[in-house]
Amino acid sequence: MADDQHLPEADPDDAWLGSSIGATDADHIWIAGRDITTLMGSMTLTELAFLLLVGREPTAGECRVTDAVLVSLADHGVTPSSLSTRLTYTGAPEAVQGAIAAGLLGAGSVFLGPAGDTAVFLADAVEERGLTADHDDAAFADAAAELVAERRAAGARMPGLGHPVHRDGDPRTERLYAIADEEGLIGPHLRLLRAIEGAHQEAIGKYLPINGAGAGGAALADVGLPPALVRGFVLIARTAGLVAHLAEEMRAPMARRLWLETEERASRHYRA
Amino acid sequence: MADDQHLPEADPDDAWLGSSIGATDADHIWIAGRDITTLMGSMTLTELAFLLLVGREPTAGECRVTDAVLVSLADHGVTPSSLSTRLTYTGAPEAVQGAIAAGLLGAGSVFLGPAGDTAVFLADAVEERGLTADHDDAAFADAAAELVAERRAAGARMPGLGHPVHRDGDPRTERLYAIADEEGLIGPHLRLLRAIEGAHQEAIGKYLPINGAGAGGAALADVGLPPALVRGFVLIARTAGLVAHLAEEMRAPMARRLWLETEERASRHYRA
Amino acid sequence: MADDQHLPEADPDDAWLGSSIGATDADHIWIAGRDITTLMGSMTLTELAFLLLVGREPTAGECRVTDAVLVSLADHGVTPSSLSTRLTYTGAPEAVQGAIAAGLLGAGSVFLGPAGDTAVFLADAVEERGLTADHDDAAFADAAAELVAERRAAGARMPGLGHPVHRDGDPRTERLYAIADEEGLIGPHLRLLRAIEGAHQEAIGKYLPINGAGAGGAALADVGLPPALVRGFVLIARTAGLVAHLAEEMRAPMARRLWLETEERASRHYRA
Amino acid sequence: MADDQHLPEADPDDAWLGSSIGATDADHIWIAGRDITTLMGSMTLTELAFLLLVGREPTAGECRVTDAVLVSLADHGVTPSSLSTRLTYTGAPEAVQGAIAAGLLGAGSVFLGPAGDTAVFLADAVEERGLTADHDDAAFADAAAELVAERRAAGARMPGLGHPVHRDGDPRTERLYAIADEEGLIGPHLRLLRAIEGAHQEAIGKYLPINGAGAGGAALADVGLPPALVRGFVLIARTAGLVAHLAEEMRAPMARRLWLETEERASRHYRA
Repeated sequence: MADDQHLPEADPDDAWLGSSIGATDADHIWIAGRDITTLMGSMTLTELAFLLLVGREPTAGECRVTDAVLVSLADHGVTPSSLSTRLTYTGAPEAVQGAIAAGLLGAGSVFLGPAGDTAVFLADAVEERGLTADHDDAAFADAAAELVAERRAAGARMPGLGHPVHRDGDPRTERLYAIADEEGLIGPHLRLLRAIEGAHQEAIGKYLPINGAGAGGAALADVGLPPALVRGFVLIARTAGLVAHLAEEMRAPMARRLWLETEERASRHYRA
Repeated sequence: MADDQHLPEADPDDAWLGSSIGATDADHIWIAGRDITTLMGSMTLTELAFLLLVGREPTAGECRVTDAVLVSLADHGVTPSSLSTRLTYTGAPEAVQGAIAAGLLGAGSVFLGPAGDTAVFLADAVEERGLTADHDDAAFADAAAELVAERRAAGARMPGLGHPVHRDGDPRTERLYAIADEEGLIGPHLRLLRAIEGAHQEAIGKYLPINGAGAGGAALADVGLPPALVRGFVLIARTAGLVAHLAEEMRAPMARRLWLETEERASRHYRA
Repeated sequence: MADDQHLPEADPDDAWLGSSIGATDADHIWIAGRDITTLMGSMTLTELAFLLLVGREPTAGECRVTDAVLVSLADHGVTPSSLSTRLTYTGAPEAVQGAIAAGLLGAGSVFLGPAGDTAVFLADAVEERGLTADHDDAAFADAAAELVAERRAAGARMPGLGHPVHRDGDPRTERLYAIADEEGLIGPHLRLLRAIEGAHQEAIGKYLPINGAGAGGAALADVGLPPALVRGFVLIARTAGLVAHLAEEMRAPMARRLWLETEERASRHYRA
Repeated sequence: MADDQHLPEADPDDAWLGSSIGATDADHIWIAGRDITTLMGSMTLTELAFLLLVGREPTAGECRVTDAVLVSLADHGVTPSSLSTRLTYTGAPEAVQGAIAAGLLGAGSVFLGPAGDTAVFLADAVEERGLTADHDDAAFADAAAELVAERRAAGARMPGLGHPVHRDGDPRTERLYAIADEEGLIGPHLRLLRAIEGAHQEAIGKYLPINGAGAGGAALADVGLPPALVRGFVLIARTAGLVAHLAEEMRAPMARRLWLETEERASRHYRA
């Protein structure tokens, strides 16, 4: 089989069942249409994930931006997700895959999911309005003002803005914009999000900064990741963070005692 | 807070509850003891995961070996895990974190888990026998012969050997040994596993090659990853593979029709 | 502690952390405000679940309707969920909780979730319109006609109607209505759903029968289960079905061979 | 199709793929070899689960014992599992199936799993020693003494004995033995476990009472549940308990604040 970048077509029989992700025979393993041994040693995991999802290898700049997003969203300490991983491990230490899965299950509409939701929102707006790299800032500002007005009229929050802790600015956001700028990868999604931040402040008279999840989603859309896949993609990073919590829980457990303390506080009225 | 490599000690109050993975305040996010903005743009996700689990940044060689293992174990096409992810997505497309979690849950003692089991087995043997880089091949051969004899006496399989498909050799194994060799990172775990392969053939008269999971587990132990964490660590790679299956399922669904066909075949006796 | 039906109030300190579900001390286990030994032997699991969610014991009729719903939604053979459970078991047979969890994760907006979505939709309509047992059929018919018109105007499907297989009527629906009728438990939710079925046919000129999930959701709302909890409640039944699949997979495995066959069909283009 | 208790044989073609759990056609749903409408209204969920796993309907006594076990293991308040469910819900409230799954994932070797482990241990011993209802207490005492000696020699804990909180006796145990006795269902598994409790005390001079999980596993084995399925079976009960926690979390949330408090305590050293 030729090791080129074009994924092979599935056999016409069972065409509906075909998968191009990978295959195995006695002597080979293929992935993304290539012999896996040609990827081992020449690619990072991030580059492989990009190849699998975008269908081509990232440039160095795209790779740096993608890794910056993944690093920014991997973890930020004790969270509902990392607590679930740790608590699950106390009950089933023999099944670490279950502990990691338990942590991932909390990455939904409230936590982490907003990265993907912002990517989809921005991509829809970019496509509907035909915004491209060639448009000037005024075009993005006009689009942003319209979007803000539409969302306000609908009583809906604006994806990608605001953070309960980082009220004056999410530290990840400026850093990510700077990296994307260094790599010449500030595309329509990041530009539109920045314009929305401004239009939103103008409309409501209050600064709601771009949050790290939103900036990450926009940056991934700008490097070419299909927006609908962003929500899944960032789970790769979160898995890394959860494994770190598992590691710490193994060497310095907290979950069992946290549970016992919580139980004592939560149900002392029963024992009164 | 100083951004050095030494993770801070937890506060003596609540010492049992302390976590060093990360933290947040209004203006900062820290991870692995550092300001996250100093890691963004200067580190891959793999390097961050290594830093979090090993407590230091990997060298370029360690990083290349680690990525080679992750690439080798990310995916190999249609598997029980990737089918679970796709089937789960058909029922709950709004919760992609659940589809990914469903796929990870199959990474247990039969699939993928053997990477970690091999790492732990080899590390225990290396420690018990005090094997180091300074020992010559004869020392490893002796240890391997003893280990093979012990396992055979106990009627137990040897972790890291044999593969139902790759009977004459797993293509990932030779490639991984070559990469580790290029980087000067063939340590006691990879050496012992190679010696075991030979001792096993000698003992039973049949060649059972080192499988890719086993080689990956040994290589991760040699670059310094705590063996007990290997089983969790490789889930990062598998998450990437499962996201690729989710992406393909979104654009070229197979799961719903596979289910209907399977249902028809499985229960036609009811409708006879 | 008195074993009455009133759940105790949480301690004012830590009031936010209080839980009334249960507690433990050296000599007791309490659940739902009662000593667990008084419930063992005098209650079915369904009755306990009802007590925990509704806050009182069900009557015999409520219990019969609730069990009928749970029985109707427990399983119907090979489904995406049961296949996920079986596939997960092949990879991690040591962690059956993971196999069950993998199956439950597919119970979302497409499968099983509609039971809860219908309950919430009906309950909102019943509340908004102030519909009660005292209203005559004409009042329900009027409300139904308005709801159908509203949904059609919004381009939205009507929850609880239609089934891809049971096009002329879901066998569970008539049986469930008959049981509820026998027990005098046809309340506003079941009545409104029936009225919607008629109004929908009148509006579009095509019969879309009430499906089993919708009827189940309506019946649970009529016996007093909080509608927002229906989606979680029916997972108890599905867990029972998935355990049955796990049992069959243990004694007559199909998942491994199904995977291998699927893999062969899905990726033969790679090996061509 | 005849609605009898004998599950139909699968079609010889695709025999490996056959499933007898259930099936669907346009007008029917079958489960456990019967038309589902004949089970609705005449069976509890517990009876259906028993039918699916044992292959016949339970007697009234078997049903009462089975429900007593399920009630006893459904929940006992704030546990690692219920905390995981609540924490997961805060991040992904739109996917309650994920929150329940997260809680189930902690039901492993440490929590809840011991019910199944005890059932398997006792069943193996009963089978190896050919213990039946006809044997007198001395035969059980002898077997118990041998088992205790074997486990002690192997340095292994005895399944089913001891509880960190209920040191002088688990309240569920005596109640469950009483119920099984009332129903004439004290079989070899419950008898052997009681004998082991005595033999263990005699051997080590310390009373380690039968715990509720162990008694439950033994009782389920005595009513005819295949011991290998006990671990999965009790998850049905736990799902009910977790749904109750989800319900409480919806109306009186604690998880978000517990997380924030824990985060503050766990990482204050970062902000010092």
